[in-house]
Amino acid sequence: MEFNFLTVIDLLGTFSFAVSGAFAAMEKKLDPFGVIILAFIPSIGGGSIRDILIGDLPVAWLSNNGTIGVILFAAVATLLFASKLKKMERVLTIFDALGLGLFTMVGIEKGLMWGYPPGICISLGVITGCFGGVIRDVVLNNVPYLFRKEIYASAAIVGGIVFFLLKSTSLSIELINILCILLIFSIRMMSLMFRWKLPMREVKGER
Amino acid sequence: MEFNFLTVIDLLGTFSFAVSGAFAAMEKKLDPFGVIILAFIPSIGGGSIRDILIGDLPVAWLSNNGTIGVILFAAVATLLFASKLKKMERVLTIFDALGLGLFTMVGIEKGLMWGYPPGICISLGVITGCFGGVIRDVVLNNVPYLFRKEIYASAAIVGGIVFFLLKSTSLSIELINILCILLIFSIRMMSLMFRWKLPMREVKGER
Amino acid sequence: MEFNFLTVIDLLGTFSFAVSGAFAAMEKKLDPFGVIILAFIPSIGGGSIRDILIGDLPVAWLSNNGTIGVILFAAVATLLFASKLKKMERVLTIFDALGLGLFTMVGIEKGLMWGYPPGICISLGVITGCFGGVIRDVVLNNVPYLFRKEIYASAAIVGGIVFFLLKSTSLSIELINILCILLIFSIRMMSLMFRWKLPMREVKGER
Repeated sequence: MEFNFLTVIDLLGTFSFAVSGAFAAMEKKLDPFGVIILAFIPSIGGGSIRDILIGDLPVAWLSNNGTIGVILFAAVATLLFASKLKKMERVLTIFDALGLGLFTMVGIEKGLMWGYPPGICISLGVITGCFGGVIRDVVLNNVPYLFRKEIYASAAIVGGIVFFLLKSTSLSIELINILCILLIFSIRMMSLMFRWKLPMREVKGER
Repeated sequence: MEFNFLTVIDLLGTFSFAVSGAFAAMEKKLDPFGVIILAFIPSIGGGSIRDILIGDLPVAWLSNNGTIGVILFAAVATLLFASKLKKMERVLTIFDALGLGLFTMVGIEKGLMWGYPPGICISLGVITGCFGGVIRDVVLNNVPYLFRKEIYASAAIVGGIVFFLLKSTSLSIELINILCILLIFSIRMMSLMFRWKLPMREVKGER
Repeated sequence: MEFNFLTVIDLLGTFSFAVSGAFAAMEKKLDPFGVIILAFIPSIGGGSIRDILIGDLPVAWLSNNGTIGVILFAAVATLLFASKLKKMERVLTIFDALGLGLFTMVGIEKGLMWGYPPGICISLGVITGCFGGVIRDVVLNNVPYLFRKEIYASAAIVGGIVFFLLKSTSLSIELINILCILLIFSIRMMSLMFRWKLPMREVKGER
């Protein structure tokens, strides 16, 4: 049951990031094959880096037809429907925020399965949630969302901390996962809507 | 015999991409050590990503003096002869296209050796053929060939599909390899000469 | 004894690169969580690539509280004290040069432990010393130090060659390490101060 639940989260995250990659590719006017490749990069990038770092090789998606099918479906659906959309950038941002929440939880659960302590689990969650998008943005020569002014990685870290706080309660693990996904998604979306920023220390070049 | 044939393709691809990297470095006016490092990046980048993803570690080139020797030779030869060349960009493009064809086949054959199905083999071919060049372009702050308007990854994918179609015929595997390498190289070069592009869906920001 | 000595070099290099990453993040006005993530990237990036290539997984820092503690300490210290500094760029450069010297030696020693020949050991030193900084610069959309005009990778390569020359003498391995670290650091700093460059072959686009 837990396995199935995590698989669902994983596939939803894969779909969200695949759509985000396909959108980003279409914004840059790549051809259909380029759109498909860009659908793959964020959906398998963060998880691949995580699995490489912990040594869980070969990476799972190479032999997971479900993952590959979801990515291809997302790419084709985006190719068909994107031209009907009014606000490309906004849709991209929503799917990216959804993927961030879903994949952060997948990364944390994987860390727990491998017996890592909470701090490392949260780091693996951040890597899974954030770094596929970073690769997507770097190869397309965009400034990564991770390094723009609004809250991004911080949402994943807060979600991870809340996960471990709730884990000591009697709530079911599925419910905790859903709450933390919604929390990460909400923080990210509200930071964009209300232009939330964390305080930055002022840096003086000279004085 | 088949092993030797694949080794020859691999070394030719290594040489082609090493020259492409050395050229790209010289265009950016890097010093000789920088040219050598940039010769390594595309020649071992794509294959390293492939081997990391499938878990075939340590990567082969670390203990393959042939590969390292070919890369060093290509870097030194480029350093010596490049200043005699009229059209740097064009030569870079030709060697890059050669490497694309050769390494796509190397990646497909490696996928077959590891027992992966055709779709994954083609993906591994694309990764081997394209991603070394992507890293080369990203670290030099160029827009990757993969994401420019002309046909690139699509040539590798078409070559991969033709490979599996021909594999069910009675043609020898060496001949099929050579045909597909020429096919990928030709598609790529002709797309540059005749400015072929795949159709892209028009995306409207507003309407 | 030798193990402890290498551990000290490793932690000093980790600290130096973590400070360099935190500084680079503050220059780009990232929020505190972004500064912490950017402290991690150069300090564990080069060593992770090295360990992935030689297949030593999971990467060591995932289960090394010392490394993680040093990085967090460096990030927090930079956040607290950076605004007091007059010349951010200069401090970043000094810590980057220190990290380059320290991590090049760590990479060479690891190559020796794994039984690789001198040429590969030097390559692993260059990867450990240079590539964390390359990732830091690429994700922040800066031109990597590695690819600017002054001497960078060349300092690491020269330090590696001197290491293997001195290793056949009767000097203790600790002394050789210290000498080579100082050599790499000095070459790098002097190349910046006196604007040293290696000769580059002149490339003619047309004639």
